[in-house]
Amino acid sequence: MSRQTTSSEHPTPPKVISAPEEKKTLPSSLLTNINSPKDLRSLPQDALPQVCEDLRNYIIHNLCNNPGHFASSMGAIEITVALHYVFNTPEDHLVWDVGHQAYAHKILTGRREQFATQRTLGGISGFPNPLESEYDTFMAGHASNSISAALGMAIADQNTPGKEDRKTIAIIGDASISGGLAFEGLNNASNNPNNLLIILNDNDMSIDDNVGALHRYLSGLITSAGYNRVRNNVYNFFKDRGLINDNLRGRLVRLNNSLKAFISRHQNIFEGLNIRYFGPFDGHDVNKIVQVLQEIKDMKGPRILHLRTVKGKGFSEAEKNPSKWHAPGKFDPSTGTRLKKSSDGQPPLWQEVFGQTLVELAGEDDRIMGITAGMLSGTSMSEMMSVYPLRTFDVGISEGHAVTFAGGLASNGKRPFVAIYSSFLQRAYDNIIHDVALARLPVTFCIDRAGIVGEDGVTHHGLFDLAYLSCIPGMKIASPSSEEMLRNLMYSSLKWDGPLAIRYPRGQAFTPEWKTPFREIPIGKGSKVTQRAEAKIAVLTIGPALHDALKGAEMAAVCGANADVFDMIWLKPIDDQLLKDVATNYSAIITVEDGTVRGGLASAVRQWLGENDLQVPVKPLGVPDNWVQHGTVAQLKEICGYDAEAIKKEIISTYASLK
Amino acid sequence: MSRQTTSSEHPTPPKVISAPEEKKTLPSSLLTNINSPKDLRSLPQDALPQVCEDLRNYIIHNLCNNPGHFASSMGAIEITVALHYVFNTPEDHLVWDVGHQAYAHKILTGRREQFATQRTLGGISGFPNPLESEYDTFMAGHASNSISAALGMAIADQNTPGKEDRKTIAIIGDASISGGLAFEGLNNASNNPNNLLIILNDNDMSIDDNVGALHRYLSGLITSAGYNRVRNNVYNFFKDRGLINDNLRGRLVRLNNSLKAFISRHQNIFEGLNIRYFGPFDGHDVNKIVQVLQEIKDMKGPRILHLRTVKGKGFSEAEKNPSKWHAPGKFDPSTGTRLKKSSDGQPPLWQEVFGQTLVELAGEDDRIMGITAGMLSGTSMSEMMSVYPLRTFDVGISEGHAVTFAGGLASNGKRPFVAIYSSFLQRAYDNIIHDVALARLPVTFCIDRAGIVGEDGVTHHGLFDLAYLSCIPGMKIASPSSEEMLRNLMYSSLKWDGPLAIRYPRGQAFTPEWKTPFREIPIGKGSKVTQRAEAKIAVLTIGPALHDALKGAEMAAVCGANADVFDMIWLKPIDDQLLKDVATNYSAIITVEDGTVRGGLASAVRQWLGENDLQVPVKPLGVPDNWVQHGTVAQLKEICGYDAEAIKKEIISTYASLK
Repeated sequence: MSRQTTSSEHPTPPKVISAPEEKKTLPSSLLTNINSPKDLRSLPQDALPQVCEDLRNYIIHNLCNNPGHFASSMGAIEITVALHYVFNTPEDHLVWDVGHQAYAHKILTGRREQFATQRTLGGISGFPNPLESEYDTFMAGHASNSISAALGMAIADQNTPGKEDRKTIAIIGDASISGGLAFEGLNNASNNPNNLLIILNDNDMSIDDNVGALHRYLSGLITSAGYNRVRNNVYNFFKDRGLINDNLRGRLVRLNNSLKAFISRHQNIFEGLNIRYFGPFDGHDVNKIVQVLQEIKDMKGPRILHLRTVKGKGFSEAEKNPSKWHAPGKFDPSTGTRLKKSSDGQPPLWQEVFGQTLVELAGEDDRIMGITAGMLSGTSMSEMMSVYPLRTFDVGISEGHAVTFAGGLASNGKRPFVAIYSSFLQRAYDNIIHDVALARLPVTFCIDRAGIVGEDGVTHHGLFDLAYLSCIPGMKIASPSSEEMLRNLMYSSLKWDGPLAIRYPRGQAFTPEWKTPFREIPIGKGSKVTQRAEAKIAVLTIGPALHDALKGAEMAAVCGANADVFDMIWLKPIDDQLLKDVATNYSAIITVEDGTVRGGLASAVRQWLGENDLQVPVKPLGVPDNWVQHGTVAQLKEICGYDAEAIKKEIISTYASLK
Repeated sequence: MSRQTTSSEHPTPPKVISAPEEKKTLPSSLLTNINSPKDLRSLPQDALPQVCEDLRNYIIHNLCNNPGHFASSMGAIEITVALHYVFNTPEDHLVWDVGHQAYAHKILTGRREQFATQRTLGGISGFPNPLESEYDTFMAGHASNSISAALGMAIADQNTPGKEDRKTIAIIGDASISGGLAFEGLNNASNNPNNLLIILNDNDMSIDDNVGALHRYLSGLITSAGYNRVRNNVYNFFKDRGLINDNLRGRLVRLNNSLKAFISRHQNIFEGLNIRYFGPFDGHDVNKIVQVLQEIKDMKGPRILHLRTVKGKGFSEAEKNPSKWHAPGKFDPSTGTRLKKSSDGQPPLWQEVFGQTLVELAGEDDRIMGITAGMLSGTSMSEMMSVYPLRTFDVGISEGHAVTFAGGLASNGKRPFVAIYSSFLQRAYDNIIHDVALARLPVTFCIDRAGIVGEDGVTHHGLFDLAYLSCIPGMKIASPSSEEMLRNLMYSSLKWDGPLAIRYPRGQAFTPEWKTPFREIPIGKGSKVTQRAEAKIAVLTIGPALHDALKGAEMAAVCGANADVFDMIWLKPIDDQLLKDVATNYSAIITVEDGTVRGGLASAVRQWLGENDLQVPVKPLGVPDNWVQHGTVAQLKEICGYDAEAIKKEIISTYASLK
């Protein structure tokens, strides 16, 4: 759930938001007097543990009612307090990598009272957002971007008179740092003079278990008091004698490397990349972190400080099971009981339909392999992992690798199913084109969290996939309107020897009974769903938007405006015969889609009409050409104008215009 | 020039192609008897140096007349011969990372006679292409994908009865391995059992000078005979006593690491990532390579073999200046003189207009920074590098980092110009959306090689950028029809406080005199270029396609079919007033664009007409929904149907239909 978001038509999150009605009582008053990091810095250092305690309680008491990303933020509290205490924010720049960690940051930077509004319509964002606060220096919804962004800022400062001494600090988790973008940042960090400090918040976790060699490597990095002592002594020895200075840093690094290798019998990848390494230290000892930061803050050149933390720190249930407490929903703060709605007799989540169906298909076809990229439980790829662990691959936060790896599997005869959230699949765009589609490899892309995702907001909506996939030659693109259809599309993808994408949304589907026998869905065939007397309006939908269209058409029919509803199922290839019938028998078309109107179904229908020299007016409903912020899915669809009510209105006004 | 390509409507490159008319004489007959790697393997090992010599001569004598990627392929000859000699290709799989290296591979794998047709229409591709030969196991136009793809193949084999012993070898250059995708592959290489062998072809070069910490690290890796001897002795000692086997490989790796650190005083990043490291060895000693490959080929688990090569090896001019000989064009094989057309009085290349204009703008505005990603000379960013080295950044093959880094620069008040080829910018799609556009950061994207690029072919055409950018809210997108306009668009982008993309093609522009005083081009304003009597057809173009449209309209007018030509300049925002005039005064629209019709200008015009309830037929000319292969730009435009002749015909037939 963490790698996702939602929004509205208002282009910028409001900077000032009214406080929540119900105020939380706090066990201590320290936090209530901190209205900016300046207030924090006016406290004596020995007060910091209490500030951390207050923050922890504040987060617990807020998140138990207003769900958000819990465990990551609980683990980063001491780091956050120490950073704002040592550095002169907002003049100095903190760059958070994925905002899961950043709740304490938001609370300390003037958003304590608004914190209860986070992730709700008109409230503050769940992620750092530079349009919300000057303390949020960069967008932080997608992982692994902090080093590159902070490096840009740090180098900009080196080229700006008066800003040369400004500090830039990237705070990145051990899962995020395994992404290729983070590596590119590390690889470039020492190319130009800069003051970049990287804080590696290492909680030994991704949203799910962390994976990859770098993770195992970090786990193996052992702190050695002896090593650190010797190293510091050597450094001071040379420095006192004027034998090293910042201009000779390169030589010092090599000295350190040899020394470290000699003493710890361990290599250090970061120093191999010419970034000075410090650590690991306890990331929950706020005074220790303050001390280390003070020691290294004025050093020149890129440095990395490795801090060990515990995800969910301070809340025992979360410490025991951090994956489940990544984004736990509502819970009882005293007992740690999570308040879950009963799922008995409820329709499944879309992701569960994917997960369970994949297990079924894999049981029948041993060519099937499952791949995801740090979204094992979020996509329910965990279902296949538990049954077929050798045929299931969670490659960590590495969407590009996931897709190219799937291309490799497919080129040796396998049938890979790649499950990635729509907005994160943007990271693998070239891999889809160059490593899969060009060679017509049979990879099935199961695009989860497609469309509006709700509370996670603007960075996490999956709005562009129809547009960015539809220009790729040979790509087949479908979206199911029901869980049964998702199931059958997955099954049917095996009949096609080329790339195929199936997009479906976050959240709950429609029918508790969905495990019907597999049935092939022909490629490029849609269906007419309703037939009303003398209907002159055709409502064409793709995906679960069908249900809103059916409701809207029903309501419009009550008002005397009849429209027929069609489920296109396929964006590409689009149903030629169905569109011929529509163009022949109807006077107006309304399209409905859960994605950008530009490049999606409306565009495809207009293109088809143009190619066929047919003139039927098309009214597109969907996401307009604006950024959509956060709120519930229902709120955001209403704002964007493609919920059932909006469809009803469009049918009625179109009906009136045809008279 | 290397990071680019071209094509046609034929979806698959032909497998069999007639031999070139003029045969080259060879100094030795060994090569003429090698019609497949099996023939190579039947030779005694001491014949291999002669085969290498023959290959070198063959490549020189071919490329001097039929230009291609010279220096990289010259440097990889011994590696190629050794690989095909030791491994059982095509059963064993070679995965080339960027096909620049792969000419010897093509010649040895049954394509010797067709080699002279490479990169020409209907001939073989300049890059490995699995649709061309079973020896080409994966697409290899974009860098850094080989490890991920080969890992997929290797793991597929581990899950395929009878294929467990098949070998998979990725061959990757030192520049490609610095890309984030390659790191993601390395990071995942040891997660699952596999037989992946990675050959690091380290020529200390990218197309331009290699950059980044990993590069400096590789340069510092010193081969140590003592170290390798000790290490092998230890390995054999334990192995002979049954103390280690492949299942204990992890432990062995740690043993090796400590040993290596102890002896060489050097860390090894690859062993930190749990990949066994061998090398570096001389990559031009074919017998040594054969020996090492035979020693390590049957080992289990991921391994990396580091070979040092010289780009351009065997051709002294190329060895001296490998960047210039990356893709040298025609040359005299005996003297090494490059046969260049005189550029006196010639129009500039588009990239030169970009490069020189950027220097001018940077001289006036010190906020301007230049960023490219391994395309310093290819984009002419080298111009800015030579004048303002501290404000110019070549981040290596790291498109994602380049864009996010630019976002960081922009968020601290700079005005970055990012120059990346269109097809490679696909690698940075999410970075454009999440790290630039979402926060409305003022980054100017200068998209070079947009449209058909010609000989580099299907992997390198820049056909999708209009489609994949136009769905991004707030993105401004323009394409200049003249070098003067490119210049002025760059200038004008500084007046706009948000992301802006300017796309322009590969190759030569139009007018030798283009350095006119800067003039602001208003955002979203196109212009009417011609006015003909009673013209009822409007030809709307974007970019340099204007010139073909003018020619086509001129020819059509001679035949009595009058059309007026409009230069839209902007895809987004599109010119509202211009389109109103067109819709009011013309009966038909023809759009012309050098990119996919789906998602580009035709789509934008149709969308505008739809939004404005206007019905004017639109006939789109541009790249159809098919892969376009290689050939000259003129050939490929003709095939796709949007050259001047095609435009003329479309005007005439539209004219006839209006009567």
